[in-house]
Amino acid sequence: MPYWEVFTPENALSDGDKEGLSECITQMYVDWVELPRFYVVMRFQEVPESAIYVGGKPNNNFVRVVIDDITLRTDDPELRSLYLATIESHLAPLVKDQGYDWEVHLDETPRDLWRIRGLIPPAPLSPFEKLWAQANQALPYDLASPVAE
Amino acid sequence: MPYWEVFTPENALSDGDKEGLSECITQMYVDWVELPRFYVVMRFQEVPESAIYVGGKPNNNFVRVVIDDITLRTDDPELRSLYLATIESHLAPLVKDQGYDWEVHLDETPRDLWRIRGLIPPAPLSPFEKLWAQANQALPYDLASPVAE
Amino acid sequence: MPYWEVFTPENALSDGDKEGLSECITQMYVDWVELPRFYVVMRFQEVPESAIYVGGKPNNNFVRVVIDDITLRTDDPELRSLYLATIESHLAPLVKDQGYDWEVHLDETPRDLWRIRGLIPPAPLSPFEKLWAQANQALPYDLASPVAE
Repeated sequence: MPYWEVFTPENALSDGDKEGLSECITQMYVDWVELPRFYVVMRFQEVPESAIYVGGKPNNNFVRVVIDDITLRTDDPELRSLYLATIESHLAPLVKDQGYDWEVHLDETPRDLWRIRGLIPPAPLSPFEKLWAQANQALPYDLASPVAE
Repeated sequence: MPYWEVFTPENALSDGDKEGLSECITQMYVDWVELPRFYVVMRFQEVPESAIYVGGKPNNNFVRVVIDDITLRTDDPELRSLYLATIESHLAPLVKDQGYDWEVHLDETPRDLWRIRGLIPPAPLSPFEKLWAQANQALPYDLASPVAE
Repeated sequence: MPYWEVFTPENALSDGDKEGLSECITQMYVDWVELPRFYVVMRFQEVPESAIYVGGKPNNNFVRVVIDDITLRTDDPELRSLYLATIESHLAPLVKDQGYDWEVHLDETPRDLWRIRGLIPPAPLSPFEKLWAQANQALPYDLASPVAE
């Protein structure tokens, strides 16, 4: 988590576009909350013609981004708005600037109902989370350890 | 938003069926809460055989509808139930009456974590939302304007 | 509900694997909360190469499980953790033991915004839910009946 689903028209994004976007977005989370890079998962799916309808009409020029997230951890309206604005700025070169319509929404899901490789992700900004970030992978750790908090 | 995902067997719905359903559902939201038509996005996805399992068995006759929504804005149990009943009545001709099994669920997601074309959608029933509805598109507006509320 | 989406690499799971997993998971819910078997819907989707990016890099060896659920009904941290651990134990033979990376998250959605065949599912552990479980299908019932609660 975050888990992104990005629905695009066919051939809208090259493999390089997808890798570039996922690198940008990953770095955004690293800069924002020091998130371990491998937490950021983006799934791209091409949508055939006549599969997305907007306001009752087919729209074959539409990019829809659906995000499930646990990283916000704030009710501050300005921070939440800034977060969305940052996402938009990273999407713009591949979406807005290419002439696509688009829409983004995000849902916040319960952090305690989330596992990576079967492991409970360490508490945000905890020493163990820093270890995971440095190793860029999920490592077994002792939840009872004094540095697990 | 609302954002609908409709998973069906292959060839269950024609392009005309999809357009007709999306028109009905769009009109439902217009009648219900004067929603701008272009808010209503429906994505249809055909599911191959042996991809949906119900109760441990493959079910190739199944329609699954998954909705993320921000339009309900009420805790009134009767209104919420009426909303679901209205959805069901629009699905029935293409699903129930065609002999498919089906299931629908809806999640309510945070309104403040939603953007269309990078813009914050205006407050419900506000003058700016009416402008968006009339234009049937997202228009830049001044959040500090006295009519933005 | 629960509604599972399981994204895998192409050819990662045979039809037998999918049926076996869905049987295991269905039985888990039956054992856990006497859930009617047909409540458990799992949708499997194969993801082509260069469609999932993890931490900015393509990962063609990744299984992503996304669950919407209404069955937990508890805030007890130990029960919630046990629930996730049980899910992991059922995934392991097809995922961990095959050398895939994987991640699981679950969202709890509002029970009142859920219909099966247009019907309101009976209250948990109510006599009508037991009837549905025995018949393994959604049956019309009288919400005003004294046994509906």
